[in-house]
Amino acid sequence: MVLDNHLLRDLTVTEKELWDEKVKQIADQHSLRQVFHIEAPIGFLGDPNGFSFFQGEWYLFHQWIPRKTKKKMVYWRGLTSKDLVHWKSLPMTIDPDTKFDSHGAYSGSAWVNQGQLEIFYTGNVRNQENEREAYQIRATMDEKGIKKEATPAIMQPPAGYTMNFRDPKVWQHAGKTYAIIGTQTKDKAGRAIIYEASADLKAWQVKEVLQPFDHDLGYMWECPNFFELDGSQVLIFCPQGATQKDLEYHTLFPNAFVIGPKWSGDGSEWKLKQPKLALVDEGFECYASQIVQAAGRTIIISWMGPSKTPLPTEELGWSGCLSLPREMSIKDGKLYQKPIQELTSLFGTAQIIDVEHSPSFQASSASQFKVAFKGNGQVLWNIRAEKDNPGLVIKVDLKNQILEVDRQAVFPLVEGAKTERDTHRKLQYSSDGKVLELEVWLDHTSFEIFVNQGRSVLSGRLFTTETAQNCNFKVDGNVTVTGEWHEIVK
Amino acid sequence: MVLDNHLLRDLTVTEKELWDEKVKQIADQHSLRQVFHIEAPIGFLGDPNGFSFFQGEWYLFHQWIPRKTKKKMVYWRGLTSKDLVHWKSLPMTIDPDTKFDSHGAYSGSAWVNQGQLEIFYTGNVRNQENEREAYQIRATMDEKGIKKEATPAIMQPPAGYTMNFRDPKVWQHAGKTYAIIGTQTKDKAGRAIIYEASADLKAWQVKEVLQPFDHDLGYMWECPNFFELDGSQVLIFCPQGATQKDLEYHTLFPNAFVIGPKWSGDGSEWKLKQPKLALVDEGFECYASQIVQAAGRTIIISWMGPSKTPLPTEELGWSGCLSLPREMSIKDGKLYQKPIQELTSLFGTAQIIDVEHSPSFQASSASQFKVAFKGNGQVLWNIRAEKDNPGLVIKVDLKNQILEVDRQAVFPLVEGAKTERDTHRKLQYSSDGKVLELEVWLDHTSFEIFVNQGRSVLSGRLFTTETAQNCNFKVDGNVTVTGEWHEIVK
Repeated sequence: MVLDNHLLRDLTVTEKELWDEKVKQIADQHSLRQVFHIEAPIGFLGDPNGFSFFQGEWYLFHQWIPRKTKKKMVYWRGLTSKDLVHWKSLPMTIDPDTKFDSHGAYSGSAWVNQGQLEIFYTGNVRNQENEREAYQIRATMDEKGIKKEATPAIMQPPAGYTMNFRDPKVWQHAGKTYAIIGTQTKDKAGRAIIYEASADLKAWQVKEVLQPFDHDLGYMWECPNFFELDGSQVLIFCPQGATQKDLEYHTLFPNAFVIGPKWSGDGSEWKLKQPKLALVDEGFECYASQIVQAAGRTIIISWMGPSKTPLPTEELGWSGCLSLPREMSIKDGKLYQKPIQELTSLFGTAQIIDVEHSPSFQASSASQFKVAFKGNGQVLWNIRAEKDNPGLVIKVDLKNQILEVDRQAVFPLVEGAKTERDTHRKLQYSSDGKVLELEVWLDHTSFEIFVNQGRSVLSGRLFTTETAQNCNFKVDGNVTVTGEWHEIVK
Repeated sequence: MVLDNHLLRDLTVTEKELWDEKVKQIADQHSLRQVFHIEAPIGFLGDPNGFSFFQGEWYLFHQWIPRKTKKKMVYWRGLTSKDLVHWKSLPMTIDPDTKFDSHGAYSGSAWVNQGQLEIFYTGNVRNQENEREAYQIRATMDEKGIKKEATPAIMQPPAGYTMNFRDPKVWQHAGKTYAIIGTQTKDKAGRAIIYEASADLKAWQVKEVLQPFDHDLGYMWECPNFFELDGSQVLIFCPQGATQKDLEYHTLFPNAFVIGPKWSGDGSEWKLKQPKLALVDEGFECYASQIVQAAGRTIIISWMGPSKTPLPTEELGWSGCLSLPREMSIKDGKLYQKPIQELTSLFGTAQIIDVEHSPSFQASSASQFKVAFKGNGQVLWNIRAEKDNPGLVIKVDLKNQILEVDRQAVFPLVEGAKTERDTHRKLQYSSDGKVLELEVWLDHTSFEIFVNQGRSVLSGRLFTTETAQNCNFKVDGNVTVTGEWHEIVK
């Protein structure tokens, strides 16, 4: 095994100068830079990792490939924030620099243990035969940096599972520490395995293999989260290869969840009588979600990816962003996700939406809209439109309770990629009465549409010209539209 | 100065046996014991103290006088919880056991600093001339106990202030640590003083004297909290002796708040152009509120006291309880307080309130009711009523937007105390349209009424017979009443 060990920290003085210049150039203000979503300063951003609350601050890492030419050199890059809104980069990264993670410091999680931030992640290795090896590695963080344990805590998957074995998410329950890890059986069926840690966190034993469905679901499960919420237990996971029969999805892989009874931890299997598998997000890009629980809050953040074709920013030197952090809750057995309230600190003055007198107006490319539709007619709503370009198109059909989102005009990918599933979504929403409330969070290159107080969310990337700032409402039939919008300033 | 040093921990073996028997007897199930509010196992409970979030758990202390015959022996008793609902007692207390707190470990706060729980409280001393002395004392907590610093961090008030100088509440802002302390000038005017701490927390310097009003307000301010919330700065305090002209209140002392612009910490005075002083709680017993901020949440808890006359439980061996923890927010410049969502974990099955068909029904003495009133008529609502006793009476007048609460029949105090101000409240509520929503949280000896999503709260104690469990609605005129209630089981 040859280590491709040319890490960022090993650049020569001249290389470092060139690199810093490049980062500076890329980080410069550009109309395709997001305003209030997390992006990488340079390179590729992937899954959120290590989302945690430690000593009064939020910590959040993400998969990071700083150098396009070194695709296997996957790092963890970190950020910290007091309010989940204003973030600053951490100086320390997790580098793919040992024989147990030489081909990528893959996804994982972080939690607080005895006053320290503990990290658990997957070391990805390609051995001399180019076969995959997967190690689950513990590390701890302090002011000086992130220190990996010399030996992985879990050296290999249990017998019967392949090396597709990754993304440990740790939680604590009744005084014990557990990790859930995504994997696949040798028969190529997706599973998640719960491990229980010894008190010193050194020994991890299989506690339970999670498969709460009555048949196999896809060939590999990635990025599992398993947590208690409002008296229930939620499994969020990415069942790669799940059939459309199990779950109607229009993305490459689904990012799904299922709600069940509280997990006892007493050894009895977590089974679901009538599992209702559903998507975390009904939109275009939302994957590898990770949750954090702190002080009674449960917050989820996701990678706004993957995309089938290259994003326009790639040639500018960066790509990928994270979703907004969303506060989760369960009411009447339904999962809700709302943008965290801290985001309202970015609001400019509220501006009334008066569709009767001003159906068309200019709105900032970084804005939040909150609009209620009442009646039984239809509404066509364009966002970031301009002459000859309808922008992002939202269609509301109140009578049939259908919401459609069309981003065809603002997703300038190669022609072949402009298929229906890349550009169009149709959602049958549930509502009390004939009211639909939409909250749209628009950033320079993304949109997130929260339906009826977060009962559903549709998210995606969007790329258009800087000048496309028209917002138009066209009402057809009996509909009252009320609402307001705020510019988002950071 | 003679130290009355007979602390609980110094009891002889026989005394300890007797004491433990007494505690056990008092702690026994009694119909006047609260179900989901914090009480002391024995003795008097007062102000909440040291409300904090530390290493994934909530910490909460309170003023505690375990022995009725030793009124000056005021301790801190502590509890901890993972969810703010299920609490367990901490083994460690703060005892009035040094020459700087010999006559009471008075109120204070706690916060997290460098992985430790720091405590700052007032040591109360009566010297040989029976004059009051006030010391602000730092302490730290670990598994072994609470360790006081040998020398108080603040030995005396600044020149010009009396020894009524207490209740330090600490917060952190822009990397610095501050405490706000309630006090009075030598001219007997209430003030709060902000101190700034040195990095090692040993030296505390006056940063600003807070008096944001254009005239003096009462003779002494107790229990100040000063914090940022949703882009504003809030001062919560107890201005003893405030006039009814400044603030209409019907309790012994007011528990008030005022909202202003963010405090900069740059030395410019915190001034209010048009201060709108208001009560934290419009009810009967709610005092000495303390807030905690963690992970983006702001939670307030209060002492449900004082009472002018002895509570019925006093002769049983205990008295006093804390309010529910309430989540605070500011919307459109208004303060909101809602019961923390974690409390819903205590709910039994939801039961529909069907006033048309069942205007009278039996409800548990520990319940939550959520009721919406629409129309322009009036409603009379009795809670914990029985034959010949109307119980707690809530009167709703939708047309005039008036809410009245009458507890005359369930507050069995000495006759002289049954004045209007002890038994009756009348609130002009604000509402969008002709809708009023009330959320009533009833425990065995208390009620908390949240008006219109927490825009106002009215709280009080209530004492009646165990059998009083009738709930009656009487509608007069055009009113639609809808809602549900849950038994609360712990």
